[in-house]
Amino acid sequence: MEEFLVKINAGGGYNVHIGPGMISECGKIISSAAGQCRAAVVTDSNVEILYLRPVMDSLEAAGLDPISFVFPAGEGSKNLHILSEILESFADNGLTRSDIAVALGGGVTGDITGFAAGVYMRGIRYVQIPTTLLAAVDSSVGGKTAVDLSSGKNLAGVFLQPSAVICDTNTFNTLAPDVFSDGAAESIKYGILTSEHIFEVFERGEVRKSVSELVSECVSIKGRLVEEDEHDNSVRRLLNLGHTIGHAIENLSGYTFPHGHAVAIGMVMISRAGEKMGFTEIGTTDRIEKCLIRNGLPTSTDYDPEALYNAALSDKKRSGDNITIVVPKRIGRCELMTIKVSELFDIISLSAQR
Amino acid sequence: MEEFLVKINAGGGYNVHIGPGMISECGKIISSAAGQCRAAVVTDSNVEILYLRPVMDSLEAAGLDPISFVFPAGEGSKNLHILSEILESFADNGLTRSDIAVALGGGVTGDITGFAAGVYMRGIRYVQIPTTLLAAVDSSVGGKTAVDLSSGKNLAGVFLQPSAVICDTNTFNTLAPDVFSDGAAESIKYGILTSEHIFEVFERGEVRKSVSELVSECVSIKGRLVEEDEHDNSVRRLLNLGHTIGHAIENLSGYTFPHGHAVAIGMVMISRAGEKMGFTEIGTTDRIEKCLIRNGLPTSTDYDPEALYNAALSDKKRSGDNITIVVPKRIGRCELMTIKVSELFDIISLSAQR
Repeated sequence: MEEFLVKINAGGGYNVHIGPGMISECGKIISSAAGQCRAAVVTDSNVEILYLRPVMDSLEAAGLDPISFVFPAGEGSKNLHILSEILESFADNGLTRSDIAVALGGGVTGDITGFAAGVYMRGIRYVQIPTTLLAAVDSSVGGKTAVDLSSGKNLAGVFLQPSAVICDTNTFNTLAPDVFSDGAAESIKYGILTSEHIFEVFERGEVRKSVSELVSECVSIKGRLVEEDEHDNSVRRLLNLGHTIGHAIENLSGYTFPHGHAVAIGMVMISRAGEKMGFTEIGTTDRIEKCLIRNGLPTSTDYDPEALYNAALSDKKRSGDNITIVVPKRIGRCELMTIKVSELFDIISLSAQR
Repeated sequence: MEEFLVKINAGGGYNVHIGPGMISECGKIISSAAGQCRAAVVTDSNVEILYLRPVMDSLEAAGLDPISFVFPAGEGSKNLHILSEILESFADNGLTRSDIAVALGGGVTGDITGFAAGVYMRGIRYVQIPTTLLAAVDSSVGGKTAVDLSSGKNLAGVFLQPSAVICDTNTFNTLAPDVFSDGAAESIKYGILTSEHIFEVFERGEVRKSVSELVSECVSIKGRLVEEDEHDNSVRRLLNLGHTIGHAIENLSGYTFPHGHAVAIGMVMISRAGEKMGFTEIGTTDRIEKCLIRNGLPTSTDYDPEALYNAALSDKKRSGDNITIVVPKRIGRCELMTIKVSELFDIISLSAQR
């Protein structure tokens, strides 16, 4: 079996296993990473139908005596109420401190399961099995876990690195085109951040040809940033490219607008503001826009600058009166900029004018 | 002002300030520990009436621009629903990552506020202002935060050391005798664990005479154990003396039975089992019983051993098929014992027979 292995030196250190068909290996991988224990699989009602059975079979075969908990699919489930149900289910099944949680699904599943693992009995271990391109390149690695509050996205959570990540790239074949695009946006982000090569693969529309390799490249970039700044106080914030405005769009849509789509728009807008401020190489925005369109992604929003600004203020990246934003220098290079909260309005206004 | 200062080298390192009238100093202490930021005070409906005003005034005077959140008093509030309300209130008030939470009250307030601080934006700082003897000697130091699940006590939480602890021993004067006794039980526990001196003060019924000094001695003992084992994997577990059976009693009572009272009974029972097993010095149990009675505490329960055993099984200290219990050798010395879960039934049965 073709397998790409990325090692991440954060938390206790862990491996990201990437390749087609990896799900059938999950029992073996988890038991080798976690030793003798019980596995509690958390998944949503969509992924349950597709992948819960093979995962349970593989865990069973590896002697991990698995249990499972299924919650209703959708971003609306990423809240403290579902978290509470997961925790009660762990307790009802007698899960102990030495057992392990398994997040099987997309970003919502990974975020809420990681959070549950981080607080159940003040912390047990967990494994990520991402089944979307977005979760594979973004949330499954790095140890950020969260649920949404009514005031904003990801406002409650913990930092907890997984004990392993198992990414079966065959699962991307069952994704709706829109959901695949969502992950493409975050992958293109890595291109804009540090790798013109990744960006070019998407520019040429060739992502499906070498998806396992591409995921491993994205995960490697994220891994290096996480290793340097596990708790998101410095360089890791580069990963927030497009996210300040992106989160504002999601917030204004009542979280009905997909994350990657929102980030795509956010990247275009901040790049445009960067060009107008003379910071970003001319032409960068144009190239980003074309690349996103080619990969089925939107590049503009109808929300007006004032609404976006107000929604952006609830962002976690705000610290006192300052906020840190990420601005492209050119494709393959971005920089962090700490600005006054009040300056953000001007930047959003600039970025909204073509 | 008479002040005892105990330094704890866990987390970022912090000071415990103990003395009569300390509340009027809280603004100064917090601003010196946390720097320029906003303070979000969390308290319950009982403590609000007594101490919220002076705390807010002191924070205001120190330039900490305080906000407050009040929840209904009682152990019944220590759940994920109230946690959620606290988090929403932090977000609604625009609290950022650099701000600080302040737990003003007893153990419930400290535990849930610490948990909220530990997960709000994946972790902000917090300060403990315990207003009960129990919280002062027990939960306010050590960084264990939690809420209860329906399956058991403290089953969800995080480890997060506070940035400071401020203990105004005048607040103990407003405690009902039963609530003061509750804290006496945990203080007597420190005596049984490592200090015959502390035990003797309670034996002689002289605790009210030197309560600030006594609290500082208890906190020092706890501090040394926490420093050695912040995440409760080894020696820190000594602090669970009386807690395996104690938690079972609380659980069976639907958490209406007070924690310290339950721990008192648990200490007597485990000491009696220890004597019968030939592990504990003969006479220890008798001395513990008399000391507890003198301090207004119960020493036996009507729950039968089987019910206690089943309730004890949901305890966090269980790891796989083993459970770690604490058994007195004599007054001033206890040991950890890891036993099979199945052996616990015999121990509870032994301990229940006079």
